[in-house]
Amino acid sequence: MFFCAITDEFMSGIIALITDFGMADYFVGAMKGVILSINPAAQIVDITHEISPQNIASAGFILRACYRNFPKKTIFAAVVDPGVGSNRKAILVETEDYFFIAPDNGLLSFVFLGFNETESFHVYELSGEQFFRRLISGTFHGRDVFAPVAAHLSNGVNPLEFGAKIKDYVCTAENKPQNFGGNEIAAEIIHIDRFGNLVTNLVKKDVPENFSLEISGKTIEKIRDYYSEAEQSEIFMIWGSAGFLEIAAFQDSAAESLKAATGQKIIVRKIKI
Amino acid sequence: MFFCAITDEFMSGIIALITDFGMADYFVGAMKGVILSINPAAQIVDITHEISPQNIASAGFILRACYRNFPKKTIFAAVVDPGVGSNRKAILVETEDYFFIAPDNGLLSFVFLGFNETESFHVYELSGEQFFRRLISGTFHGRDVFAPVAAHLSNGVNPLEFGAKIKDYVCTAENKPQNFGGNEIAAEIIHIDRFGNLVTNLVKKDVPENFSLEISGKTIEKIRDYYSEAEQSEIFMIWGSAGFLEIAAFQDSAAESLKAATGQKIIVRKIKI
Amino acid sequence: MFFCAITDEFMSGIIALITDFGMADYFVGAMKGVILSINPAAQIVDITHEISPQNIASAGFILRACYRNFPKKTIFAAVVDPGVGSNRKAILVETEDYFFIAPDNGLLSFVFLGFNETESFHVYELSGEQFFRRLISGTFHGRDVFAPVAAHLSNGVNPLEFGAKIKDYVCTAENKPQNFGGNEIAAEIIHIDRFGNLVTNLVKKDVPENFSLEISGKTIEKIRDYYSEAEQSEIFMIWGSAGFLEIAAFQDSAAESLKAATGQKIIVRKIKI
Repeated sequence: MFFCAITDEFMSGIIALITDFGMADYFVGAMKGVILSINPAAQIVDITHEISPQNIASAGFILRACYRNFPKKTIFAAVVDPGVGSNRKAILVETEDYFFIAPDNGLLSFVFLGFNETESFHVYELSGEQFFRRLISGTFHGRDVFAPVAAHLSNGVNPLEFGAKIKDYVCTAENKPQNFGGNEIAAEIIHIDRFGNLVTNLVKKDVPENFSLEISGKTIEKIRDYYSEAEQSEIFMIWGSAGFLEIAAFQDSAAESLKAATGQKIIVRKIKI
Repeated sequence: MFFCAITDEFMSGIIALITDFGMADYFVGAMKGVILSINPAAQIVDITHEISPQNIASAGFILRACYRNFPKKTIFAAVVDPGVGSNRKAILVETEDYFFIAPDNGLLSFVFLGFNETESFHVYELSGEQFFRRLISGTFHGRDVFAPVAAHLSNGVNPLEFGAKIKDYVCTAENKPQNFGGNEIAAEIIHIDRFGNLVTNLVKKDVPENFSLEISGKTIEKIRDYYSEAEQSEIFMIWGSAGFLEIAAFQDSAAESLKAATGQKIIVRKIKI
Repeated sequence: MFFCAITDEFMSGIIALITDFGMADYFVGAMKGVILSINPAAQIVDITHEISPQNIASAGFILRACYRNFPKKTIFAAVVDPGVGSNRKAILVETEDYFFIAPDNGLLSFVFLGFNETESFHVYELSGEQFFRRLISGTFHGRDVFAPVAAHLSNGVNPLEFGAKIKDYVCTAENKPQNFGGNEIAAEIIHIDRFGNLVTNLVKKDVPENFSLEISGKTIEKIRDYYSEAEQSEIFMIWGSAGFLEIAAFQDSAAESLKAATGQKIIVRKIKI
């Protein structure tokens, strides 16, 4: 046997995983075993398995924040799946550069919302049971559906063989900033990172040139270019490495200082100069 | 140098790790370094390093729950080793399809108990010091014994070269359900997963067709096929994806609702219809 | 395309990561994606991403404790970087056997202090922006500088192409034991492992043949060869697997028993026989 991945130009052999399975159970091991049983040359990359249990939006944000760093034709398998075993669909999304496999529960909303207007993509409903494990449990489609589909796809199976193209997939726009026409934009905290930085759903084109931000009754006006540019215990804004506006505190946790939580509303106001 | 694994048909090149070393120390890095120094083409797979410290039974359950998902000839190195440095043995188990390397402290009991009656296997005592690191510490055989043995095995070394076959390995049957002949079976909780589901030691052949289960003074009768089939705050049974009976709560943690713990006893009662 | 790593004799293709990014964010995924985009055949090894946030010394200790277990020419990328975006330098260290890439903030002090007196090494300042990502964020050089440099290095780029050799890199000696000439040595706890063992900064050549150790007002004299050799609730010394003297408690956490913390001072006293 020869375990090198001799793949054609359409496949990278990389399968990147993002789940809420944690690392203290057998779930991740089972997915990896299934993938390697189908494609022994697959290169499995753990993005994270520490999504907080059943936090669909968080998985979507993290995927959006890093997928474009991966080689073209990387396959992303994202599994946060509270509706597992019910009649929710499972989908495969094919863009010009990447593949995404996930339950059709809005997990990929952030990915869909981040596409350029000219970016073409197709959504397939996973229905080809010949690519699933023979016995499908009612509780673990990560192992029984998503892992084997990702592995077969990495072996070069054509997306259309997994199921028909569909148009009625789930894309929740609830996390988009709302511009009320005037000088205020309603936005929210979508993620709090390990260092306590608050990631908002605001990208550069959402905000005016000069603006302030209100959170937890506090108004923040200062924007910094890097963390250590700030002064002791200053709370400031910074354009984060994922392209979203973040709220940070110098050598401190902004989340704790502001008692902020994921989902919390914030308001952006235009400053007239 | 050419790093492709050109292996014969008896080796997969995959070494899957399961330990209680956590990810905040140098232990896992050291094991991986040792493996790659001996077999640069080894494909190392992390099953988990988050076994709770010195919880031998939990490591055994997780291994049992996922090892059959891996390609044939995968080598599993499982290290939860409170007796490290003492005279406890270290063993290599060879089945028709897999290899297991572990301290001889009962870690592999769940694996042994799960073998089919027709499944043949051999147990070797690891005594061939030429395959260990030259200086063996008294505290870290994961790096000094188990990792190098796994790597040499993946290079094609014959199991017999590591040591002689033995019959007196440790297999604790304490986690097997006890059928008292009548209509009651004494069982227990062997694992609590990330979502708070309680995994019991009961597989399908252990229980009658119709049964109820008593836990924490509560009787549960309902069996569901998947989680979201249940009603709000319902506590129910479900055949879990590892083949064991589980107790779950709808969108909630059964462990918290029932204040249940690993090792807790439960009783299965036959229902007459 | 052919994804086997056909590398020359100067490269192992292995890039080992150690960061404080945790596994619940997109940071690690982004670094891996960048590496694989530049060298699809790189073998990425996670040492740990669970360094406590901004704990530079802890990352240095863990790196020191395991790097010599890796194959020659392994590239270590270590990112604990509170000064990211400021004018702190980024460096590449080349020894006869290994490469280290890190911010120039003292992270590599333990590595420098552990070199043999005859070991030659070179330190380069990373300044060749052609090897960085095109747009460098002010907050995430793990993705924008360290990952791409590691990947290009693994592709065979000559160290000198990344920048000029420098002599004025940061090496803090604060963690070295202080011998006051008499019979006392001032040392400290540099790491507490998952099991509560206290790792000191003392290696064998630092201490006399017979000695006692004072910590938290307690004097410890017993040295054991392995953990289970000790008696119930005994607190003892042991030469740990990383080569440093450790303080351990039998089947218990020495950290809790002694209410010890990282950075705590200890005193070694020569015993006259």
